[in-house]
Amino acid sequence: MQIEYLDAIDIIKNSDDIYIITHQSPDGDTIGAGFSLYYMLKAIGKRAKVICPDDFPERYEYMYEDYVEEDFNPKRIFAVDVADEKLLGDLAELYGDKVDLCIDHHVSNTGYAKYTLLCSYASATCEVMYELITRMGLKITENMAKCIYTGIATDTGCFKYENTSARAHEIAAALMNEHKLKYSALNRILFDIKSEGRIKLEAELMRTMETYLDNRCTLVCITKEFLDTIDIEGSELEGVTAVAMQVEGVEVGVTMKEREPNVYKVSMRSANDVNVSEICKSLGGGGHVKAAGCLIKAPLEEAKRLIIDAVAKGMEKAT
Amino acid sequence: MQIEYLDAIDIIKNSDDIYIITHQSPDGDTIGAGFSLYYMLKAIGKRAKVICPDDFPERYEYMYEDYVEEDFNPKRIFAVDVADEKLLGDLAELYGDKVDLCIDHHVSNTGYAKYTLLCSYASATCEVMYELITRMGLKITENMAKCIYTGIATDTGCFKYENTSARAHEIAAALMNEHKLKYSALNRILFDIKSEGRIKLEAELMRTMETYLDNRCTLVCITKEFLDTIDIEGSELEGVTAVAMQVEGVEVGVTMKEREPNVYKVSMRSANDVNVSEICKSLGGGGHVKAAGCLIKAPLEEAKRLIIDAVAKGMEKAT
Repeated sequence: MQIEYLDAIDIIKNSDDIYIITHQSPDGDTIGAGFSLYYMLKAIGKRAKVICPDDFPERYEYMYEDYVEEDFNPKRIFAVDVADEKLLGDLAELYGDKVDLCIDHHVSNTGYAKYTLLCSYASATCEVMYELITRMGLKITENMAKCIYTGIATDTGCFKYENTSARAHEIAAALMNEHKLKYSALNRILFDIKSEGRIKLEAELMRTMETYLDNRCTLVCITKEFLDTIDIEGSELEGVTAVAMQVEGVEVGVTMKEREPNVYKVSMRSANDVNVSEICKSLGGGGHVKAAGCLIKAPLEEAKRLIIDAVAKGMEKAT
Repeated sequence: MQIEYLDAIDIIKNSDDIYIITHQSPDGDTIGAGFSLYYMLKAIGKRAKVICPDDFPERYEYMYEDYVEEDFNPKRIFAVDVADEKLLGDLAELYGDKVDLCIDHHVSNTGYAKYTLLCSYASATCEVMYELITRMGLKITENMAKCIYTGIATDTGCFKYENTSARAHEIAAALMNEHKLKYSALNRILFDIKSEGRIKLEAELMRTMETYLDNRCTLVCITKEFLDTIDIEGSELEGVTAVAMQVEGVEVGVTMKEREPNVYKVSMRSANDVNVSEICKSLGGGGHVKAAGCLIKAPLEEAKRLIIDAVAKGMEKAT
């Protein structure tokens, strides 16, 4: 059942001993929302614990420096930034049908929770957390500010993507006016710093990038052979599709990742009007209009030909 | 003579037939300030013309789609984002000592103009333009919004750098609330798209990057030989220092650019506490605490040794 801010505040005030669940492969927004909710619950005298099916990436640890993990059995389960119970991963079986309150901004939220505070116009779940905490009449503490800034900044690509709203900027301004944090140092951690493996991978992708269809389509391929030569974590492969999108005039960027011999996971991004969801559907996959994917089982050159043919057809439709 | 907003408004209202000069190697902020000033002057019925010693990079042309160049002799000269008359390049001789009003945000402004509206706390000269236009009681038009957003976004690295103020976010929010522009499409042009030459250069720098001093210093070198193999404009070399700064744990990033055999232009960036202004001063150069440069005349390996020795000394001081 979808609820409004005031209902959510009632539920929160009437809950005790709360587990806060973040989604699997946790990002800045789910972690930021989880811990800003934790700090808020502590501020009103509740016992709370943040749990996640996966480990948190190390670069986000500044958000939970003041987190104290307590042992208790939960009376209430809250979920943050979790659009679908499947995204609870290993925790889905245990808690998937027991979520009392879900706070989210994904329009695709399946409504699996008993109550859902869903603000689909918000740039990030952390934007919802800001509105919630301030509507409760609570002061945004420094820890909350760190978390909320992180969620909004990471989900908007540092205020760069289409979901960046005026409200996202207003909240950033309010946080900065209230707390003298080292925002630029956070941004450096969140957006600039890369591991040596990631740098080597990007260099290799830039070097071997192919262009097709009058340079309107770029294609990069991450081979198992190359991955074996570098030291890189799985989570560091995320966002690598951006490499194929930085070429002037590109309409569709394709990233192929070799899963096993002759099996490729394909990610597609569209810069403007080409519908990559449809293109990927024609290849047996799916996704969003501007970001989609599919799996192709074929030798490399044949796989490329299949992809480029499908992209060419998709481009014709867009013109 | 330094003046306040109200004085600047008086000067503007009492001026006619104005040339607006932007600085050489024009960036988003000087172009944005120049054309937002042009649109403001047109709005109050003045004749104005924007001039620059260099051509404007093509990617900024959306800011002057509605600009109509007129032929007239100037009665007043205004300069925007020009901290020093030397930055007028080829126009310095003609107009260097004739600037009536300079609007700027550089703390290093030399005061060469008759009157200077200097807001050194502003993230960008375009932030000053926003305050000026709104204080005049004028509506921010769509063209002004494009210009002002561009100046603030480019000078702050899309709200990422240390100069990003709460006010910068507030103005971005105000612009977005007022005008439904495709901000994310602008951001793609401003921050994501790179020429093929730039992509090849970054790939080469990532591939050949060297690390020193327990990985706390990275060094990349742009040789004339490599530059000759790619197609790249001078303006596209800007910002390439960021490549050396993305490595985890790096304190100082050094970019060497070969000017001629055995002559290297060196740029240094500091991630945190190391004062690269002092390091570059010890090598005969100078600059800001976190971004400085110098010129080194020596064979490559000797030049590197000189640099790394100086960086090592600078790091010792910082600890």
